[in-house]
Amino acid sequence: MKPPLRIAIAGLGTVGGGVVKLLRTRGDKLSERAGRPLELVAVSARNRKKPRDFMLPVAWHDDPIALAKSDADVVVELIGGEEGVALALVDASIAAGKHVVTANKALLARHGARLAVLAEEKNLALRFEAAVAGGIPIVKALRESLIAHGIDAVRGILNGTCNFILTQMEATGRPFAAVLKDAQELGYAEADPTLDVGGLDSAHKLALLASLAFGTAPDLDHMLVEGIEHITPEDIGFAREFGCRIKLLGIARRTAGGIDQRVQPAMVRAGTPLGDVDGAFNAVVADAGVAGPFFFEGRGAGEGPTASAVIADLVDIARGSTGPAFGIAARALTAIVPAPAGAAVSAYYLRFEVLDLPGVLAEIAGHLAQARVSIESMLQRGRRPGEPVSIVMITHETAQSAVERALKAIVTSDKVLGRPCMIPMEAA
Amino acid sequence: MKPPLRIAIAGLGTVGGGVVKLLRTRGDKLSERAGRPLELVAVSARNRKKPRDFMLPVAWHDDPIALAKSDADVVVELIGGEEGVALALVDASIAAGKHVVTANKALLARHGARLAVLAEEKNLALRFEAAVAGGIPIVKALRESLIAHGIDAVRGILNGTCNFILTQMEATGRPFAAVLKDAQELGYAEADPTLDVGGLDSAHKLALLASLAFGTAPDLDHMLVEGIEHITPEDIGFAREFGCRIKLLGIARRTAGGIDQRVQPAMVRAGTPLGDVDGAFNAVVADAGVAGPFFFEGRGAGEGPTASAVIADLVDIARGSTGPAFGIAARALTAIVPAPAGAAVSAYYLRFEVLDLPGVLAEIAGHLAQARVSIESMLQRGRRPGEPVSIVMITHETAQSAVERALKAIVTSDKVLGRPCMIPMEAA
Repeated sequence: MKPPLRIAIAGLGTVGGGVVKLLRTRGDKLSERAGRPLELVAVSARNRKKPRDFMLPVAWHDDPIALAKSDADVVVELIGGEEGVALALVDASIAAGKHVVTANKALLARHGARLAVLAEEKNLALRFEAAVAGGIPIVKALRESLIAHGIDAVRGILNGTCNFILTQMEATGRPFAAVLKDAQELGYAEADPTLDVGGLDSAHKLALLASLAFGTAPDLDHMLVEGIEHITPEDIGFAREFGCRIKLLGIARRTAGGIDQRVQPAMVRAGTPLGDVDGAFNAVVADAGVAGPFFFEGRGAGEGPTASAVIADLVDIARGSTGPAFGIAARALTAIVPAPAGAAVSAYYLRFEVLDLPGVLAEIAGHLAQARVSIESMLQRGRRPGEPVSIVMITHETAQSAVERALKAIVTSDKVLGRPCMIPMEAA
Repeated sequence: MKPPLRIAIAGLGTVGGGVVKLLRTRGDKLSERAGRPLELVAVSARNRKKPRDFMLPVAWHDDPIALAKSDADVVVELIGGEEGVALALVDASIAAGKHVVTANKALLARHGARLAVLAEEKNLALRFEAAVAGGIPIVKALRESLIAHGIDAVRGILNGTCNFILTQMEATGRPFAAVLKDAQELGYAEADPTLDVGGLDSAHKLALLASLAFGTAPDLDHMLVEGIEHITPEDIGFAREFGCRIKLLGIARRTAGGIDQRVQPAMVRAGTPLGDVDGAFNAVVADAGVAGPFFFEGRGAGEGPTASAVIADLVDIARGSTGPAFGIAARALTAIVPAPAGAAVSAYYLRFEVLDLPGVLAEIAGHLAQARVSIESMLQRGRRPGEPVSIVMITHETAQSAVERALKAIVTSDKVLGRPCMIPMEAA
């Protein structure tokens, strides 16, 4: 048998601990797959004395950067954060001639193209299956499998916390804030949930998927990013009446005008693959021309799925698979030509909070007509003269910018309260 | 750039033609992914003069075996058939030091382990993504991605023809034979549909998935194989009343007593991933312990998806990925220890055609009780004294052998007509 692949791990939280345990308990099976032993030679974490349900390996380093100087062949970065120690460790590891495996989507969305160039110059692997959609092998699928026809769009439910919250809101009818609090108590949401519910975590993942799909450098700067904080139980109820569910989607699509990248809540038809993804699951649809849509679903986070993805990358590296991080040589990655803002075409769900007064509907309809937005259906729930009520509309297919133009005019009315809610209808 | 990967293709039907066209039209993009050009150097097919919508490459061979002696680095076998020319070509190609890519599940289910040993002795790749589930990268996922925790079960809709027929029977209420005829006219079913509707095509694919999942040699001899010919519109209607749909599933499951491999129609709950797979689509669930279930769905056949899978294998080989065909060294593949026949535990749907006479239900219930099969629910549609009617039952969870024992006794009754229908209920 070949010599072992020597592994160093920085970060021993849920995922790092899971990887250590798998290397211990499934070592023989993994060696069989890898064609050589996988040997853990060093670790680093914040607190050596923290109680852990696994034995620490021999070499402990308080300073993660020391792993770059260890005798490891590959450094696994599970520290997190888009700058700071994580970035320093990845840079130092590549400089020291070590392969890198990371679950750090934020870091790669910002620095992935540069780091990939450095790694490829030294024929080193930079692998990140665990960074997107937990254990679902979507990174490998886009990098190595769905390459023949080119990808038209990649669309997914990329944040389990948001999907859990939306599913709970639907099941219980309770508002966002209350469900978020439950999710935090259950461990499904962080104490600071901003990154998840604000859409940025999905954005990081989408940037990586878009790069793999289109051969472009990961690009967070040309991306619409919207979270789920403003979704109300009422919106979810209306969605259901239209046969839809509200999902936070990350979508990267090749359009005539350029690549459109967006993270935003969308109405997805129930009974379709994406529409039926529940709870903390993640899912991705890759539209691949005549090869058809491919659908992948699995657990989006947690020890089991994420450690599974790290192990798969390690076995790949052990087998000598050191191909380019983003599917084509990093130097050949092109800059995204972004689609013009507002050019996206879709039907839209619109909800207005209005005072139930004569003429309010005419006023809204007038502004929509002026922007050439036509309405497919309209719902007003209840009658409460002079009081606030909701008016909900579904538009025909129209450019986002036209709807935005109409809304801008509509909010100037003193009969319209607050900011209207605008959610695109996404084809399954 | 590195020297080109030289490719020879045997068989220029739908898939082979698709591969030729992709190499022509997407050559630059594929080279970018492969890190080197992909160059078609020779082809062989039955009839050189057949009209084709693509240019033939320079080197034509009437005898496919000649490709093994060509200057190709890799031979793509798209002839089909589990013996004969296809087998001779693969053997000769490996003997001549050429990598092999094939879509031939029948051949690999029978000879895969032996051929993999030969290929691996010479450090050659034997790749077959196109053999299972069209373009869905399930072979790669099981071989390279879902390896950390071990697979408990792999379950799938592996034959698009059967799924198309069952979907159409449900939509139209028409019987199997009529829908099969339509499917043949639409090109969704072969002139001789036996391989598909009898379950053997699914069995070939399941044998390969089981091998990848469990590290066992492909084994067709220890597999229950049942087709869909006996499914009636009535069964589909009853399934719907129980919230289920009937799907032809291939299931390979690790049990305490050994590995259980079976291809058979199953009741799958509607609203679950497998239950909602429609038309000619394929889908696979891989149960991977704490990493959770993974679900993959895509088009199961046709030029686009299948050629896509062949191209992915070629690009892998171009990149130097020549790891073992079945995920572990072929010499280390073990023989399947089959689960004892009849040990599988499930709830069952049972349909009896009986004469509507006093005592018939008591007789059936008595035999079931004697075999210790208990009934969860029962339906009799209509009353026609003295005439044939259907009685349908759902059992509680019970061993297959117990149900079979009861049915053996029940069919001896002169009030019971024909062979009862017995379909397991499959958890999603």
